[in-house]
Formats: sequence, structure tokens, C-alpha cells
Amino acid sequence: MTVKISQTADVQKFFEQAAGFGNDEGSPRLKRIVQRVLQDTARLIEDLEVSEDEFWHAVDYLNRLGGRGEAGLLVAGLGIEHFLDLLQDAKDAEVGLTGGTPRTIEGPLYVAGAPLAEGQVRMDDGSEEGVATLMFLEGQVLDPHGQPLAGATVDLWHANTRGTYSFFDQSQSEYNLRRRIITDAEGRYRARSIVPSGYGCDPQGPTQECLDLLGRHGQRPAHVHFFISAPGHRHLTTQINLSGDKYLWDDFAYATRDGLVGEVVFREDGARGVAGRYAELTFDFQLQQAPDTDAEQRSARPRALQQA
Amino acid sequence: MTVKISQTADVQKFFEQAAGFGNDEGSPRLKRIVQRVLQDTARLIEDLEVSEDEFWHAVDYLNRLGGRGEAGLLVAGLGIEHFLDLLQDAKDAEVGLTGGTPRTIEGPLYVAGAPLAEGQVRMDDGSEEGVATLMFLEGQVLDPHGQPLAGATVDLWHANTRGTYSFFDQSQSEYNLRRRIITDAEGRYRARSIVPSGYGCDPQGPTQECLDLLGRHGQRPAHVHFFISAPGHRHLTTQINLSGDKYLWDDFAYATRDGLVGEVVFREDGARGVAGRYAELTFDFQLQQAPDTDAEQRSARPRALQQA
Repeated sequence: MTVKISQTADVQKFFEQAAGFGNDEGSPRLKRIVQRVLQDTARLIEDLEVSEDEFWHAVDYLNRLGGRGEAGLLVAGLGIEHFLDLLQDAKDAEVGLTGGTPRTIEGPLYVAGAPLAEGQVRMDDGSEEGVATLMFLEGQVLDPHGQPLAGATVDLWHANTRGTYSFFDQSQSEYNLRRRIITDAEGRYRARSIVPSGYGCDPQGPTQECLDLLGRHGQRPAHVHFFISAPGHRHLTTQINLSGDKYLWDDFAYATRDGLVGEVVFREDGARGVAGRYAELTFDFQLQQAPDTDAEQRSARPRALQQA
Repeated sequence: MTVKISQTADVQKFFEQAAGFGNDEGSPRLKRIVQRVLQDTARLIEDLEVSEDEFWHAVDYLNRLGGRGEAGLLVAGLGIEHFLDLLQDAKDAEVGLTGGTPRTIEGPLYVAGAPLAEGQVRMDDGSEEGVATLMFLEGQVLDPHGQPLAGATVDLWHANTRGTYSFFDQSQSEYNLRRRIITDAEGRYRARSIVPSGYGCDPQGPTQECLDLLGRHGQRPAHVHFFISAPGHRHLTTQINLSGDKYLWDDFAYATRDGLVGEVVFREDGARGVAGRYAELTFDFQLQQAPDTDAEQRSARPRALQQA
């Protein structure tokens, strides 16, 4: 028989006290959120008859998760970050704010302050020459009417051939495979880079530990992340996920979406001054009009080197 | 207007997939718990209209909380650990398992493997002589009929005069103020120690950051922690909270309970071979019969040096 006390007046009152309802200091907003978290947690413990051992294992897990800085990876892997996109899509649909390139998750591996370039740039530091396949990534940023947006900022980042990201993988050079490109008069961005490999969770990390217990892998298809912004237009957080990858529609972070698959074309034709095999990936982005000035900015999510 | 999608069939199905319902590997129990956490999280986000910025601040907070190993401190401070005691009390009442010394929270600062002594022991390393007040802490462990329990293990730990604990405060000697005492033929334990000060959360830590926003302090009254066990009897996790402390009934961790207040008596009578002022604290514990052998053991909560 299940014993439940969380809905009693005494326990509700206790949670209100713990959430700071008994005083006039602090943040009323956080108090309300914490009260709800306490109520939800107590109900979950009762409804699922969570044992003491299970509870303390979860607390220990939170310490290990944060100790490795993987909370952002876990919320991606459990689909919460994708849920936020679905919810924003629904809110947009409600007010008729539709069209343009779909949004998808940012992921936890952005680093602020990447080198800025006009029109075109080389993204890789050459350290994987001979191993990596050269990739020419280019396209246009368009406004809601399909007209080119000059002076838009294309802030892009991707993994190397081992699926790891500079800054988080300290063996890579600073800002390797991270750049900000200002579009030219035709709204074009051009990047010479390398074909990335898909990202995989650290097999020894707490996120993969959870995924293992859920019977799930922790792999992503090869992809390129983008922040795209332009004055008067709504900030876009999205990704191109590369065609042909075995994880394209089996992404542990649920980032692949219709309209966000990039067709990679491999060539070996001596063009572009390249002797061997290389890849081309062309992808255009279309922004929405910004409903207000706040919408021109990305979220205030804490990010690496944000203050740089 | 609030847009909600979490209860739609599509989103429910998505959470089932993310929780691993689509495969036969892993832990069915964890899958069920994760599914519920996903549902609760999505509902909370919708009901309270949690913004992107708020969500990512929370994720960043989890990283910082775990990075400092404070998840166990936060669940104490938010009253979840006390709720677990209230729930266990209610479950016990339901099956008529009552009587004996009340349980209260363990807290996150136990360290396994403290030195073992027969009957009596000195707990402090003498490093605070001249600052600390000597304390004689003693009492009996009794069975449900009030009869002395010889050979019971009294595993006790407390803070120093600065309110900090050995192991977590690396400036203290190993196992300072941590001992295991086996009760004598009369069920007695006797400890010569020092009067502890109350514990306070690290003012710079993430737990205090949360408490500040809830308008709450992060202080505990002076107290002594106990694990008490004896063959055939139910393991008891409890504390003595010291009378006269300003935080006695204003404990941020809600550990003080009726029946757990220890009356400290200060003397300066030349007795016990002590020249100056000293304290006496007498406290008896009464155990319950163990309903099964599992009940003789403490929880499997991960603890410092557990494997030592």
C-alpha cells in the first residue's frame, strides 16, 4: 500500500516555508519555481515509491553530472532541449510567426568570441591535413522575402574528424573550427573547412551512464552549428545535419529536423585548386522578421568565454 | 496566452522514446522514472512559462552545484531530506512500527571508516585547545523495552568550533571529531570531545546562492550526528541538536525535531579532572526491533570513503 503525505496541508505548508514564502526577501519568481519543484519531487517520490537508495543515487548522480559539466549534454540527450524547440514552434504558430529556416538545439559546446571574417574564411588550422576531407561550405542568408541579407553574422562551429570540439578538446588550437562570417553584398558566406565527424558522448561520462541504463546510444550525426543574426531580423539557432550519416535520423539529441539536412557532394575533379577528393555543401538560411528587438539576440544562456 | 503541448500524443510518445521505452535494453525502473521526470519538467516549463533564459540558468546552476559537490546540501536545505523522514514516519505509522528515538536527516558530511573504540573515546585531536570548550557526551543505547544494548555501534560525527567537518575541511586531521564507539556491558557510550559550533553553508557556494534568492539563511544549530546500530535492531540515523543555540528551531536543513534536543550543561566545578569550564551532554537512544535484516543497515547512499 502506498503512503502519501505530499498533498497534506502540513507538507504543503512546509514546502512553502522551504521555498521562502514566509519572508519578503529574495526572488518571488524563484520561490514559485522552487515550490513547484518541491511539490513535483515529493509526488514523484510517492507515486513511484522511490526508495532511499534510489533517491541518494540520484543526488550522487547530480554531483557527478555537474562535476563533469554535463548538465547541458543530458538535457539535450533526454530531449528536453528539443522539447523547448517544439514548444517555441507551437507558440510561434499561435501568433502566426512562421516561415524561414527551422530552429534546432544549440547544444552545450558553443564558445563565444570566435574570429570574425568578411564574406569568407578558412576554419581549420590544418592540423588534420591528410586525415580530413576538405569541405567547401557556402550559401546565402535571405530575408523573409527571399532577398539576400548583406552584413548578417553567420557564427558557426563544428567538430573535427574525431568528433570533438576545440576549447572542450584542449588538444585543438584555440577557436579551431569556430568562426564568425559577415555576409557579403549578396548575402553570401563562404567557409573552407573540413568534413566533421559526428559527436559522441564520453563513454565514461554521466550522460552516457544514464543513456546506457535507458538502452540508448549517445551518438550524433556529423553536423555544423549556426547562430545567424542580422539587424531587424529574428536570431536563428540551428544546425545543418549531413546527409548520408548513419545517425542522421537516429540522433541522440534529436536535433535533426526536416529542412535541416545538408546534402554533401563529394568531388574529385581538380576544381577549386584541390588535387584530391573534396566535399561541397551549399546551404541557404532564411530569417524571420524580428517581432521586437529582444528577438534579434540569442538567449542569455551561460556560455563558454561569454564575457570575452 | 499559454501554449501547452506536453500532453499531446506526439510529445508523450517523444518522451517515451527519449526514456528508452522503444528498446528492450537497460533498466525498466530508470526508464519509468526518467519518463516521469520528463513529463514533470515539461509541465513545469509550460505551467510557469519558464523562459529560455531561466531554463539555461537552471542548467548552468546544476553544473555549478555538482561542480562543488553540493547536491546533497541543497536537498537538505530545500527540505527534501526532511520530507523523506516525514514520509518514512508515515509509512512506519501505517504498519505500527513506532517508538524509540526519532530519526532525522543524515546530511552530506558523513565519512565512513572512523576509528573504532570500546565504550569510551576521545574524539578531538587537541588542535583547538584553548579555543574549544571540553564536552563530555555520554548516554545509553536501549532496546524497545528500555533494556541496555551492549555491543551496539554508536557512529558519531560533529563539527569543530568553526562549524566545519574533517575530511571536507582539509585543514583538520584525519577523522577529527569522527568516531565509532561500541557500547559497554551497560549499553553505555562515552565521548570526550569539544562543543561544536553550528554549520553554515559556504557563502560563495551554489546552495547559499539559491537560499539567498529564497530569502533564507543557510545556518544550522550546533549538533552531533549519529548512526546507531545493533544486531536485530533497526538502524537509526539521527542527531542531537544542542539547546540554547539561536538556530535550534530555525535550522536551514529542518533537522531539529521534538525528542532530539540535547540539554548541554556547563560546569566549572573542578570535577572530571578539568580545571576550567566544561560541558556535559547526556543523551540516551532507544532502537526499534528490526522488521527484517535489511532494516539493520543504513541506506546505500554513496558516502565519502565508503569503500575504505
